[in-house]
Parts: sequence; structure tokens; C-alpha cells
Amino acid sequence: AGPARPARLGLCAACHGEIGIAQMPGAPNLAGQRLDYLRNALAQYRDGRRDAAVMRAAVGPVSDAELDALARWYSAQAPAPQAQP
Amino acid sequence: AGPARPARLGLCAACHGEIGIAQMPGAPNLAGQRLDYLRNALAQYRDGRRDAAVMRAAVGPVSDAELDALARWYSAQAPAPQAQP
Repeated sequence: AGPARPARLGLCAACHGEIGIAQMPGAPNLAGQRLDYLRNALAQYRDGRRDAAVMRAAVGPVSDAELDALARWYSAQAPAPQAQP
Repeated sequence: AGPARPARLGLCAACHGEIGIAQMPGAPNLAGQRLDYLRNALAQYRDGRRDAAVMRAAVGPVSDAELDALARWYSAQAPAPQAQP
């Protein structure tokens, strides 16, 4: 019983996948990533310390509580070995 | 038979672990991360688009070829589920 599926998951999943295996070139895998790192990365996208247009657009309309739920979701997914490009 | 162990691996391993499982709060896991993302992240630390003092210090003395070997090493490691803090 991990975290409940976040309501805003679809916004992230287009690039990062529903379980954190990236679906787009340039997007990182998030499955099993450390929660503190994910929280910090989202805060940096929010305040501009990390400047990536797609992430700025993505986090803009999402509340802090929703961002935290998304970070917890991805951190709780089991990382899976994958073929590398 | 993955990539050969990079000569400069110790520089990264203090925080990210030898096989990419983070050893320090705030450091991300790198095991199995997408190679394109790792290469881009290193380029961003090199040129300052991503500003993190410890990473700027770490990549400063490392050649581009060495950075690429490190990115390939970590991308090739199998991600492992871990206890989250």
C-alpha cells in the first residue's frame, strides 16, 4: 500500500510515465528516486533556480500539496531496469 | 559487460554511490538513469544553468570525455529498490 494515485498524475506521466519510467527523450526516470531530491527539484522548478520551460509550465498550476503527493508517488514506485537508448 | 569502471568514479561515489544509489541526503540516485538526461545534467552543471556548488566543484576538473564515461557508467547500473527516508 503505497501512496494513493495523485489526481494530477497525468500531467507528469506524459513525459515521466505513470510509474516513473521516462517516455520522452530528455526526461529522467523518477521511479524510486529519493523523496528529498524530488521535493527539492520541484521547489527549484517552482522558483526558477532550475529553468526548464516544460517543467515551469507543468508546476505552475499545481499546488504545493499536489506537488508533494506527486513526489511521494514517484519516489514510492519500484525502479525497473530498462533498455537504454 | 557494461562500461569499464571510470577512473574518476570516486569523485561521484562519495555522494551518489559506486553503483548510483545515493549515499547523502539531497543527492539523487543515478543507477539506471537515462543517459541523455545524465549527459544534459552534467553539461548544465558545467555551464552554470544548473547551479549547485558541490556539482560545480566536482565537474570543474573533469574532462568532457571523463564526464561522459561517468554518465555511461551510472546509466548502465541496475536500479535497485531501496528503503526511503
